[in-house]
Amino acid sequence: MKINSKHFRTIWPAATGMAVEIIDQTLLPHVFEAKRIDSLPAMIRAIKFMQVRGAPLIGAAAAYGLALAMLEDDGDAYLQQAATALLASRPTAVNLRWAVQRMLQRLQPVPPAQRLTVAWTEAAAICDEDVQLNQAIGQHGLKLIQAAGQGRTMNILTHCNAGWLATVDWGTALAPIYAAHDAGISLHVWVDETRPRNQGASLTAWELGRHGVPHTVISDNAGGHLMQHGQVDMVIVGADRVTSTGDVCNKIGTYLKALAAFDNAVPFYAAVPSPTIDWTITDGVHEIPIEERDAVEVACISGRLPDGRMATVELLPAGTAAANPAFDVTPARLVTGIITERGVCAPAQLAQLFEG
Amino acid sequence: MKINSKHFRTIWPAATGMAVEIIDQTLLPHVFEAKRIDSLPAMIRAIKFMQVRGAPLIGAAAAYGLALAMLEDDGDAYLQQAATALLASRPTAVNLRWAVQRMLQRLQPVPPAQRLTVAWTEAAAICDEDVQLNQAIGQHGLKLIQAAGQGRTMNILTHCNAGWLATVDWGTALAPIYAAHDAGISLHVWVDETRPRNQGASLTAWELGRHGVPHTVISDNAGGHLMQHGQVDMVIVGADRVTSTGDVCNKIGTYLKALAAFDNAVPFYAAVPSPTIDWTITDGVHEIPIEERDAVEVACISGRLPDGRMATVELLPAGTAAANPAFDVTPARLVTGIITERGVCAPAQLAQLFEG
Repeated sequence: MKINSKHFRTIWPAATGMAVEIIDQTLLPHVFEAKRIDSLPAMIRAIKFMQVRGAPLIGAAAAYGLALAMLEDDGDAYLQQAATALLASRPTAVNLRWAVQRMLQRLQPVPPAQRLTVAWTEAAAICDEDVQLNQAIGQHGLKLIQAAGQGRTMNILTHCNAGWLATVDWGTALAPIYAAHDAGISLHVWVDETRPRNQGASLTAWELGRHGVPHTVISDNAGGHLMQHGQVDMVIVGADRVTSTGDVCNKIGTYLKALAAFDNAVPFYAAVPSPTIDWTITDGVHEIPIEERDAVEVACISGRLPDGRMATVELLPAGTAAANPAFDVTPARLVTGIITERGVCAPAQLAQLFEG
Repeated sequence: MKINSKHFRTIWPAATGMAVEIIDQTLLPHVFEAKRIDSLPAMIRAIKFMQVRGAPLIGAAAAYGLALAMLEDDGDAYLQQAATALLASRPTAVNLRWAVQRMLQRLQPVPPAQRLTVAWTEAAAICDEDVQLNQAIGQHGLKLIQAAGQGRTMNILTHCNAGWLATVDWGTALAPIYAAHDAGISLHVWVDETRPRNQGASLTAWELGRHGVPHTVISDNAGGHLMQHGQVDMVIVGADRVTSTGDVCNKIGTYLKALAAFDNAVPFYAAVPSPTIDWTITDGVHEIPIEERDAVEVACISGRLPDGRMATVELLPAGTAAANPAFDVTPARLVTGIITERGVCAPAQLAQLFEG
């Protein structure tokens, strides 16, 4: 998407040498900076410390991570070792597993000497396909928004960042919003700040602002109240993993918004490309591993000082314990529909939508 | 309650002169400092900028505010004017209105020359009564916790700060927790950080820590996930206003926790002294005015820099709009019980409990 009228993806091959560049998302919204990644360990660090994040982008980054690994050693043993290390970097998003498996399937039958070239091409293909999937999601979601709005301004609430920064381009939850906005449909987005890492306040607000989409940031606590008072027409979120039965695992707090949407008859949608669907499981609450991240993400927060410098401040009394589960699971019974590249369906119809 | 083994209330008459002292709660948890308040305008500022906050404490502070006003002018006109100014300082908590009306009823029949002394005595009585109400709430709540726990460690989730810092002493939601802890019942408190002002992370964590009650701070987003996984045995919150029908108005985000508690069959209690009950209204969602506070509370956050200095950092991209409704209303249908000084009852039995 555009930043100061120049088009960017979130990950791209470097202009020179075997390396990729990423947007360092830990510096946003205050600093926009690309970072060169030229090795597998560097990519694993970028994923772990969330310089790249968002399920689809993690998948694309992992694919390039394997390509970079082939620079160092293209043998079978190292390929497997690299895959294992990437899989361990974030446990919840299924796109990571999907991308690593796809790369392994593509690379294992190929002679080692050709693996670097093939891996590079396959990673690029994964990126291009992600963009196409998201554009299709945007078009299907646009129709939903148009039908629900019927000319009046639609107020759409979103949680976390499932925008173009979470994918290679366009986004998942935000793809319909960008598509609708670009088609001239009047809309306004309620952006949950999304503690503890504030991806809503920092990333979603930033990218909506750059694209000119009207939006207002709210605390994660506010959505229920707004829904009670008719100020939310639709909720659209992304997902890190969706079960074959339509349970939606997404950033912690999504479940609370789904409960409020259900209680107030506000439609609740998850926008997901097919690599986010885990066809192997049916019970999201009990089967999806939930990443427990460092308590420091709850205890401290970063932002910009009045003089423009960045700083991290401590919020808790010294020595206070904090817990930090990073995701939760919204049971399918609370989900109105899943927006995929194939179209929109009820959670229970997901398998049917992708059959044949 | 105790701080470094010295007993404090949150508001007390100054040792010298006609003034009160308060704990400046905007400096906690990093700095503990008492502040002298010697005039009505100073008290209104302390209430507005939340140096004193929490429905019961706002009531006590308003009572002393009227007493301080009598220092300046004890005539009828100024008494009424002072009452009006206090009522406008925070719109949601009903204790403020209750305390101001009680003071007016006490002072209006009294000759102006005696009003200062009478006001001072009445404000002190309101404070002492608040402490007694909260102790009674603590004892009733203790029995609930004991019965539910039956010997195992009880995990109790609370939102915002309804501890002794929100009252004159003991607290409302935390009174049962302190009483149970002091009685040797094993418990652990999940403390919602409670954005945007972080009263959970700063005040609740601080006071539980000083009293030695085991606790863990979580983001406001995490409670639903913990309930889904059986890690919460009970929710206890305070309230800024409860309708005669048992709708609970409390810090924004309470409604989301109540929905999650209901969805997971976790008992959800509001602990409220009778001055928090508004007998004049029946529909909390539509009749209680919800304070919209400054967007800067969402856009910025304060904390401690690594060098120990306090700083405020900006979280949002420059120019981003934010909304900040400060309270929401949990419908009575989601509330298991109301813990009052008279005992515990279902929301629908509230009027009956206080009859006769």
